Amino acid sequence: MNPTVETTLTQTVLERFAGCPDARFKTIMNSLVTHLHAFVRDVRLTDDEWMQAIQYLTAVGKKCTDTRQEFILHSDLLGVSSLVLEINHPPHAASLESAVLGPFYLEDAPARPLGADLTDGMPGEPAFYSGCVTDTAGRPIAGATLDIWSADGAGFYDVQLPGPLVKRGRGKIMTDADGRYWFRSVKPADYPVPTDGPGGVMLQKLGRTPDRPGHLHLIVAAPGYTAVVTQIFVADSKFLDNDAVFGVKKSLAAKFERHAPGRAPNGEQMNVPYCTVQFDMRLLAAA
Amino acid sequence: MNPTVETTLTQTVLERFAGCPDARFKTIMNSLVTHLHAFVRDVRLTDDEWMQAIQYLTAVGKKCTDTRQEFILHSDLLGVSSLVLEINHPPHAASLESAVLGPFYLEDAPARPLGADLTDGMPGEPAFYSGCVTDTAGRPIAGATLDIWSADGAGFYDVQLPGPLVKRGRGKIMTDADGRYWFRSVKPADYPVPTDGPGGVMLQKLGRTPDRPGHLHLIVAAPGYTAVVTQIFVADSKFLDNDAVFGVKKSLAAKFERHAPGRAPNGEQMNVPYCTVQFDMRLLAAA
Repeated sequence: MNPTVETTLTQTVLERFAGCPDARFKTIMNSLVTHLHAFVRDVRLTDDEWMQAIQYLTAVGKKCTDTRQEFILHSDLLGVSSLVLEINHPPHAASLESAVLGPFYLEDAPARPLGADLTDGMPGEPAFYSGCVTDTAGRPIAGATLDIWSADGAGFYDVQLPGPLVKRGRGKIMTDADGRYWFRSVKPADYPVPTDGPGGVMLQKLGRTPDRPGHLHLIVAAPGYTAVVTQIFVADSKFLDNDAVFGVKKSLAAKFERHAPGRAPNGEQMNVPYCTVQFDMRLLAAA
Repeated sequence: MNPTVETTLTQTVLERFAGCPDARFKTIMNSLVTHLHAFVRDVRLTDDEWMQAIQYLTAVGKKCTDTRQEFILHSDLLGVSSLVLEINHPPHAASLESAVLGPFYLEDAPARPLGADLTDGMPGEPAFYSGCVTDTAGRPIAGATLDIWSADGAGFYDVQLPGPLVKRGRGKIMTDADGRYWFRSVKPADYPVPTDGPGGVMLQKLGRTPDRPGHLHLIVAAPGYTAVVTQIFVADSKFLDNDAVFGVKKSLAAKFERHAPGRAPNGEQMNVPYCTVQFDMRLLAAA
């Protein structure tokens, strides 16, 4: 019996890439077609399911705008974004782990003095962050930059609010001579990923929840060290083990210790409860 | 050493599907994520390549309209459509092979008498098609329906022409008491797939050609037999072994025999050269 088209088709397609002048693109497309065909064969995809897949991908594309990226959301929800992060920024046992950049980073956050209040009136439970940036041997790194951004206490980033952008919860601060940093912001709230598009339909069909645990984004950089894009997660969030986008790492979970109204670490008199967060970070010397 | 997130992440994502109430959907998503992650790991996809992939998929989505399906084009160009066809309509040695339906089928083609001229003034070299529809033992099937459509001699389907749709090159005919059919149309031209979108960019980057060999579409159906969606390919097309969408099967290639002006098979006096095509079809009894 002759081999069937089903068994030979993948090779036929790969042979058609023989003339591809870009070796890297050829490698990628070879692998993509091999895995795509294997998927179709594995599940014995039906005609109807194929058409549903086409219509689904089209709907994802139609949902994308200048301010909404539904394909990135799907990459996040299926763990692909986290996988790409692991491959390109593998963890080093002695240093700070990475987390995804996410869609809400702005490059031109204002420089702020050490100890600054980054909230600019942003709602949320006050939180005083502090810690030390060191090398992997624990030696302090002076002048390390922390580029910080986060959602507010309701789970919204400044760029998500209606009207013209008013930057809040963002700032760049620098460690002191002893590698220490401290600043005030809020305890970032848990929030759901956008569910008003195909991604929400997919989550529902999968019986999954859309929630992310609260987290503060930061990029830590210092001359002579490998910069790290990461997040500090609220350790007591009920979504810590169930992050919709698979971004949590245990080493990035920090305790948000709650205090009654009183004198805060910066000497300020607080009339409301507030949190303190202690989080040290180790950087790897640049290669 | 602990297992890395890179190695455990796929399983973490699959475990999140545990509550999916739809067993078939769960199977499909399990396989999709497994293969998607394997692809990313195999090629060590970089951050930049990931972003290019996101932007590419978005561009494919943006190119889709009511009359243009760029995702289906990509499914065709990567051999996925043909693979789905093979899985769902596997060949049976003794019967007519399948080919993809394509995007130009209209359900309400007019019924025409045996021998009809389907062209309605469509440009192209005249072609007289004939043959016999039988069961797999070669016994004629009377009253089998051939639902026929094709491009014209310039490679365009009626639905692709500007202005309101005027149906051409379409019709349903029925075999006679001896299972025979015959009709007049044109020799369908080779034509390229649309290259003014991302699909064209991809073909160029892969060093591939966009051309399809000329072909006549038809759906053959008869009571008590399994209907077949298929195409008759022009055997002497220079793209027969290089179809951009991997649709050609050897058993579906038919000789378009060219004749000098003179008396055609239907008795008509032809003032221009014309073709004759002989193509018999065997149907499998319905299961």
